[in-house]
Amino acid sequence: MSRMDVTEKIVATKVAKGLKWADVAKAVGLSKEWVTAGCLGQMQFDDAQAATLAKIFDLTEAETQWLKVVPYKGSLPTSVPTDPLIYRFYELVNVYGTTFKELIHEEFGDGIMSAIDFRMDLQREADPKGDRVSITMSGKFLPYKTY
Amino acid sequence: MSRMDVTEKIVATKVAKGLKWADVAKAVGLSKEWVTAGCLGQMQFDDAQAATLAKIFDLTEAETQWLKVVPYKGSLPTSVPTDPLIYRFYELVNVYGTTFKELIHEEFGDGIMSAIDFRMDLQREADPKGDRVSITMSGKFLPYKTY
Amino acid sequence: MSRMDVTEKIVATKVAKGLKWADVAKAVGLSKEWVTAGCLGQMQFDDAQAATLAKIFDLTEAETQWLKVVPYKGSLPTSVPTDPLIYRFYELVNVYGTTFKELIHEEFGDGIMSAIDFRMDLQREADPKGDRVSITMSGKFLPYKTY
Amino acid sequence: MSRMDVTEKIVATKVAKGLKWADVAKAVGLSKEWVTAGCLGQMQFDDAQAATLAKIFDLTEAETQWLKVVPYKGSLPTSVPTDPLIYRFYELVNVYGTTFKELIHEEFGDGIMSAIDFRMDLQREADPKGDRVSITMSGKFLPYKTY
Amino acid sequence: MSRMDVTEKIVATKVAKGLKWADVAKAVGLSKEWVTAGCLGQMQFDDAQAATLAKIFDLTEAETQWLKVVPYKGSLPTSVPTDPLIYRFYELVNVYGTTFKELIHEEFGDGIMSAIDFRMDLQREADPKGDRVSITMSGKFLPYKTY
Amino acid sequence: MSRMDVTEKIVATKVAKGLKWADVAKAVGLSKEWVTAGCLGQMQFDDAQAATLAKIFDLTEAETQWLKVVPYKGSLPTSVPTDPLIYRFYELVNVYGTTFKELIHEEFGDGIMSAIDFRMDLQREADPKGDRVSITMSGKFLPYKTY
Amino acid sequence: MSRMDVTEKIVATKVAKGLKWADVAKAVGLSKEWVTAGCLGQMQFDDAQAATLAKIFDLTEAETQWLKVVPYKGSLPTSVPTDPLIYRFYELVNVYGTTFKELIHEEFGDGIMSAIDFRMDLQREADPKGDRVSITMSGKFLPYKTY
Amino acid sequence: MSRMDVTEKIVATKVAKGLKWADVAKAVGLSKEWVTAGCLGQMQFDDAQAATLAKIFDLTEAETQWLKVVPYKGSLPTSVPTDPLIYRFYELVNVYGTTFKELIHEEFGDGIMSAIDFRMDLQREADPKGDRVSITMSGKFLPYKTY
Amino acid sequence: MSRMDVTEKIVATKVAKGLKWADVAKAVGLSKEWVTAGCLGQMQFDDAQAATLAKIFDLTEAETQWLKVVPYKGSLPTSVPTDPLIYRFYELVNVYGTTFKELIHEEFGDGIMSAIDFRMDLQREADPKGDRVSITMSGKFLPYKTY
Amino acid sequence: MSRMDVTEKIVATKVAKGLKWADVAKAVGLSKEWVTAGCLGQMQFDDAQAATLAKIFDLTEAETQWLKVVPYKGSLPTSVPTDPLIYRFYELVNVYGTTFKELIHEEFGDGIMSAIDFRMDLQREADPKGDRVSITMSGKFLPYKTY
Repeated sequence: MSRMDVTEKIVATKVAKGLKWADVAKAVGLSKEWVTAGCLGQMQFDDAQAATLAKIFDLTEAETQWLKVVPYKGSLPTSVPTDPLIYRFYELVNVYGTTFKELIHEEFGDGIMSAIDFRMDLQREADPKGDRVSITMSGKFLPYKTY
Repeated sequence: MSRMDVTEKIVATKVAKGLKWADVAKAVGLSKEWVTAGCLGQMQFDDAQAATLAKIFDLTEAETQWLKVVPYKGSLPTSVPTDPLIYRFYELVNVYGTTFKELIHEEFGDGIMSAIDFRMDLQREADPKGDRVSITMSGKFLPYKTY
Repeated sequence: MSRMDVTEKIVATKVAKGLKWADVAKAVGLSKEWVTAGCLGQMQFDDAQAATLAKIFDLTEAETQWLKVVPYKGSLPTSVPTDPLIYRFYELVNVYGTTFKELIHEEFGDGIMSAIDFRMDLQREADPKGDRVSITMSGKFLPYKTY
Repeated sequence: MSRMDVTEKIVATKVAKGLKWADVAKAVGLSKEWVTAGCLGQMQFDDAQAATLAKIFDLTEAETQWLKVVPYKGSLPTSVPTDPLIYRFYELVNVYGTTFKELIHEEFGDGIMSAIDFRMDLQREADPKGDRVSITMSGKFLPYKTY
Repeated sequence: MSRMDVTEKIVATKVAKGLKWADVAKAVGLSKEWVTAGCLGQMQFDDAQAATLAKIFDLTEAETQWLKVVPYKGSLPTSVPTDPLIYRFYELVNVYGTTFKELIHEEFGDGIMSAIDFRMDLQREADPKGDRVSITMSGKFLPYKTY
Repeated sequence: MSRMDVTEKIVATKVAKGLKWADVAKAVGLSKEWVTAGCLGQMQFDDAQAATLAKIFDLTEAETQWLKVVPYKGSLPTSVPTDPLIYRFYELVNVYGTTFKELIHEEFGDGIMSAIDFRMDLQREADPKGDRVSITMSGKFLPYKTY
Repeated sequence: MSRMDVTEKIVATKVAKGLKWADVAKAVGLSKEWVTAGCLGQMQFDDAQAATLAKIFDLTEAETQWLKVVPYKGSLPTSVPTDPLIYRFYELVNVYGTTFKELIHEEFGDGIMSAIDFRMDLQREADPKGDRVSITMSGKFLPYKTY
Repeated sequence: MSRMDVTEKIVATKVAKGLKWADVAKAVGLSKEWVTAGCLGQMQFDDAQAATLAKIFDLTEAETQWLKVVPYKGSLPTSVPTDPLIYRFYELVNVYGTTFKELIHEEFGDGIMSAIDFRMDLQREADPKGDRVSITMSGKFLPYKTY
Repeated sequence: MSRMDVTEKIVATKVAKGLKWADVAKAVGLSKEWVTAGCLGQMQFDDAQAATLAKIFDLTEAETQWLKVVPYKGSLPTSVPTDPLIYRFYELVNVYGTTFKELIHEEFGDGIMSAIDFRMDLQREADPKGDRVSITMSGKFLPYKTY
Repeated sequence: MSRMDVTEKIVATKVAKGLKWADVAKAVGLSKEWVTAGCLGQMQFDDAQAATLAKIFDLTEAETQWLKVVPYKGSLPTSVPTDPLIYRFYELVNVYGTTFKELIHEEFGDGIMSAIDFRMDLQREADPKGDRVSITMSGKFLPYKTY
């Protein structure tokens, strides 16, 4: 058994029971973004969170154990994603990557936006011309230091 | 001559003159995100915008002409970016990609967030534990339709 | 179980029963192009459509459930397809890709042809020198916007 | 000198003179699709066509000579295209590739749609919800034969 | 079950029974080249051919059914083949590829040698310095057409 | 200067002078297949052959010298060729590769068809339904030996 | 069942029984280099050799049958090997590859060292500063011929 | 200027002057294998050796300087070599790689054959059936150590 | 069964029993770095070490046997690692690789730092601004030698 | 002009003048590790540092300007490095990567070792059996946070 098996069971159970990630997140008591990432095998849960998920997804003792282990991360099967929705994000990195770089360096100097000390919020933005997806990302700026 | 040559000249002139993208954007009269992407060879400028940029970056007639042509987009030299700042965004797609997918589908059904009808805003977020980079993305949701 | 398992069962059942996609599509009440893509794991079906398909392909409750979930899209096992028929389409993109780009930009300006708000019609075109495959694609033009 | 140099000169001259592919095609007397592909280094021109293009794009004798040689085809710099417009076509092959395959085989049996004995027509399709790009492709069906 | 499973069974049965492809081809009544390609999952058989093969390889009803479906073609596990015999053919394409191109264009103009309307004959060529493999390929020339 | 520079000069001169490979081969006194491969940088010429080519292609002393050096072989810019004509040969290896392997092993046992002790003949084959390209390859069989 | 299954069984049995390749080779009556390569799925055994191996590794009739079939060769899971010992050989090819080429051509002219008509001997070379691995390779030189 | 430029000049001068690596090596006073590798940009020369080479290849002061710097090693343009002679060595690693591994571990335990504390000797081996290339490699065995 | 199966069992058992690598290492009597690498399938254990691990992880006789065999090394599923923690080390090689090279050559001349005669120590480094990971690597310098 | 041009000039000047990185670092007043990385185009210098380097490497005004711009990082030409010294570090990541991961998570929980808030020290470690390279890395631990 591996974490991937647990992820597959969680997803299959979600499909079978017709659950929503937003409700799962509410039960866990954290944001839907972080909880979904965790259920998809990208985050480590603590004892209480894992117990909650075990109940929701009918996990065995051993499966629940895996939720508490730091997973080998990376959720995509190919380095350039084939799924159109996910590809659009890859395209944004490809088209706007150097723009991100220039503007962050202009504002902060040499360093990066952390992808670890990071949070994200995804919302529907009503719009008469068609609703929009609004994503706000916030990552700590980490400067390169001389030594 | 190609658009890439014009981009290189713009960047080199910016370095030589010590300009800021924020000021260039102000002169053009649009957001710093869009203008920087355009200067880095990812967007098409109209006549007035190109004329403004020509003055700022000492472009020749022929070079200015290229700014008004739709470029072959994609700003990165490798499919997995090597630059640490840009890689962090690629990592976000890799770690959170399936989470984006699940949450957008849960909210909107089958479809994608447009990377074309799209805008972005990048700001410094003051924080006592260290300032943060805050990025807000807004893309129109485009549903798959049956036919 | 995953969507891929359901796709494999659908294809195997089609082979075993000697069904035709055109007839499956008629039963579902939509075009053969969209229905086939859905049966091959690329589209999401609604309740009524899924129920129809369940009957045709002898799907279990759980399998039918998967048809109503948005799939991870991308139907090809390699980034450059090895199958001669599918490769010909890849070759068209390779040989005519920059031509598509030039002509669409010349007609519409900067933007793309949507692959989401998209429909397709595939027909036999009788020809004394040998019948032809005729494919008509129609995708909404989406302009890049300044901001 | 190589065909690629001639292509670059043609494109640069087009930008400098502000020409349109549709007008170039009219001067050559063939479709805009085929003529643009040729100007972008994918087709071989005959003497009269090359002479017309030489005048339009101020080509030297040697450059004109190259237009009459069959080029090494393939117009994209990477096997998965980075440009959003061209990527959408690649995505169509990826998402609909197996659908093309199933429907063509269902209609015609084993074989392919020729990408050589092939023609294409690209038009604007007016639509109150936003104009559409309409592309009609017609390729001869070539059956595999037993022997 | 998939075509690949049927191919594996055919190959395993051939090994177990010690059959020869030449004899299988004789039973089917076509060339050893085409029949072997079909048995290895690259061609579609008709009812009579499939029935003959079913008897030879002890195929079930369902397995026989798969032989009559057009397969997803491509018989090699990697894009550059690792097997020395097959690599030699890849090397020929690599070393002589541009030579094929020049000579075919010199003789026929722009176009290709069809790999679909194609037949092949493989023979032993006796030679006192060591026997040789002789392969004759014949493919219809397909010209690119203007439109 | 490198062999690649000499190849480019030979090809450019051929285009400029409107020469034919068949005539070049006749002047050298060998087959058009081998001579073309050599001119495209895949074979080593001896003194007399190089002198003949130097005259035909106006090569300098130093350029002629390079023709007599064994080149770094491989004539294609990508591992999967993008040019449609050359791709068809790659496709043959992909579709028929395991068939070549089975039939050669059936006839000869373990070993390979040499791509070194090899010759090739390319001819037009008249056919009322459209002329065909006929290629005959002959390579020595080299058996693996036990030791 | 496939040759790979037989290889895995041979390796697992060797581990379980604690056998040595040198002893297996002695039983077969050939060099340890060739026999090990064969046991690892790279060579074809004859009837007597296969019978000997069947006894040593407790192979079934069907498994033994596979040893007599020419395998699909190539023993490494990735094109650049990750295992440090095997990588060192890849590194030698990478660092010394052009040196091999220059020296063999200087001595023999255009051609290759056969990897088919080839034998290899691997020995321990005692050395006070630390024993060394000594490998002697001998491959027939095969000249390219004009035609 | 870079080491690669110096390598290109050395090779071009060798072609122009018709030199032999064996003679160059004799002048340097070391083996032809090591000296050739160094001239091809894979080894670092000391002052005396560099001076000798400067005279032979008419190097400038600056060029000679580069010979004394440790180069960025790796002499091949692609990870799977396209040149037939060099590919044969890659094939040996691919086919015999796991055999090397098994036999070295059987003789020495866990560790590698050094590619650094390494020497090589390449000789012609006369043989009535056709001369052979004989290569003897000797590399120190380096054991993995526990700690 | 293969070493990979044993590794998976060890990891699954560790998760199920809630063991710590540091304690496993203490039981084996060696450093946590080496023992963990071994348990993850990268090192060969001796009889006593394997017996200890068999008890800890409930291994069968056959599984224990595999621990004593030199494994095929390389612990990552992709050549560019997707896991953020492991990627950071890859990034260090990418950003600092040429710096390692320059400084080691400046200090030692041409050669490498051995990755075989190597040891590593990983410690927590307390720091008021946030604890740090401290890794000390020590590898023998191996000089290239002339011959 | 680009940063890469400046890096090339710095390296060429260093070779020509016979400078040492350790001395350059002393002049700049920071560690040799950081200064070398910066000179190789991986770090951003401030005004004073850039002025010092301009004097040492005879840089023009424009070249000095580039040293003060954050570079596009990544110092290696291929994703798997070919240079033996740098490859050894890649091999360490490949062999020990999962070990790093397990031990850091065991000590710190989920998170990463920063490659940004990072310092490194490279020293010679005298050893009677052969001197060793000792590298100490220290990176801040960054925990993943729930939100």
